[in-house]
Amino acid sequence: MPHISIPDGLPGIIGPLSLRPDVAGPLSELCEVLMRSENSLTRGERELIATYVSSLNDCFFCQHAHGGLAQHYIQCDMDFIDAVKTDYTTTPLPDKLKSLLSIAASVQQGGKNVTPGQITKAKDMGATDMEIHDTVLIAAAFCMFNRYVDGLDTWAPADKQFYIGRAKQRAEEGYRL
Amino acid sequence: MPHISIPDGLPGIIGPLSLRPDVAGPLSELCEVLMRSENSLTRGERELIATYVSSLNDCFFCQHAHGGLAQHYIQCDMDFIDAVKTDYTTTPLPDKLKSLLSIAASVQQGGKNVTPGQITKAKDMGATDMEIHDTVLIAAAFCMFNRYVDGLDTWAPADKQFYIGRAKQRAEEGYRL
Repeated sequence: MPHISIPDGLPGIIGPLSLRPDVAGPLSELCEVLMRSENSLTRGERELIATYVSSLNDCFFCQHAHGGLAQHYIQCDMDFIDAVKTDYTTTPLPDKLKSLLSIAASVQQGGKNVTPGQITKAKDMGATDMEIHDTVLIAAAFCMFNRYVDGLDTWAPADKQFYIGRAKQRAEEGYRL
Repeated sequence: MPHISIPDGLPGIIGPLSLRPDVAGPLSELCEVLMRSENSLTRGERELIATYVSSLNDCFFCQHAHGGLAQHYIQCDMDFIDAVKTDYTTTPLPDKLKSLLSIAASVQQGGKNVTPGQITKAKDMGATDMEIHDTVLIAAAFCMFNRYVDGLDTWAPADKQFYIGRAKQRAEEGYRL
């Protein structure tokens, strides 16, 4: 049962957002701009970063909601998403994306954990300043979303198929509420 | 030197936000709504929660920028703000606010760290569902802001007086850019 009174049947972040439309506006706009707007990082790559950070934060709702979207955009199976979460270094992801996932993992631990060596590595792999900026902000934003979802102990469907099944529609509709 | 190219002389979060007006919009709107809109938690109380979480995340810019604002709203001296950061339990803050700071500290560690006992305690002290909601989201949001500021290694003035000096103007102007 959530820590506060939230309408039944609204999964994850949707529940608390329904209580505060004034907050839901900027949060959903942030997600829309960060995860879906024109960007040299694909939507799939950005969803993968969000999924990985949500997995590190052990947030069930976010890692499966965004994992479903990553799978939809990348057109892979869920085993691949699971492999990225378990150990992305052993997957066939491009080296640039691996270097960005490394930065995201450090941000999850705390902003000061990002090292100049990680940044140099990412730039050597072809990452632009804006891609590094967006990686840091996506990782930071999901440290917020994950804490919001779990800090209120929101309800989430336990069936992982739920998240895969809704990914296509979510991808079409976007994040704006 | 910041990890990416950021215009000189823009302190903390202002630097990276200048690179991305599309992101700056929702982030500043989130901060405005969460920290300044009509609320049963005073602006001073909300800034104190933000300051405390930023201190736990060891984010120099945020803890001093928001500490300066907390001091401005509460009309206390900075020694009091420092005492709250060091050990709020020994300060004369109201018990309700102490129970909310306890929840904020758990959110900083991770959403799942918030216990039913902390929630019960806060409600017993008179905290409403919405105050608990806002505390969780403020703590979560500053886990984002702190990581954004430090994950890019942004520049911040070292002189603490800088933050005290600008608090009044910031309080008058708000967070919208």
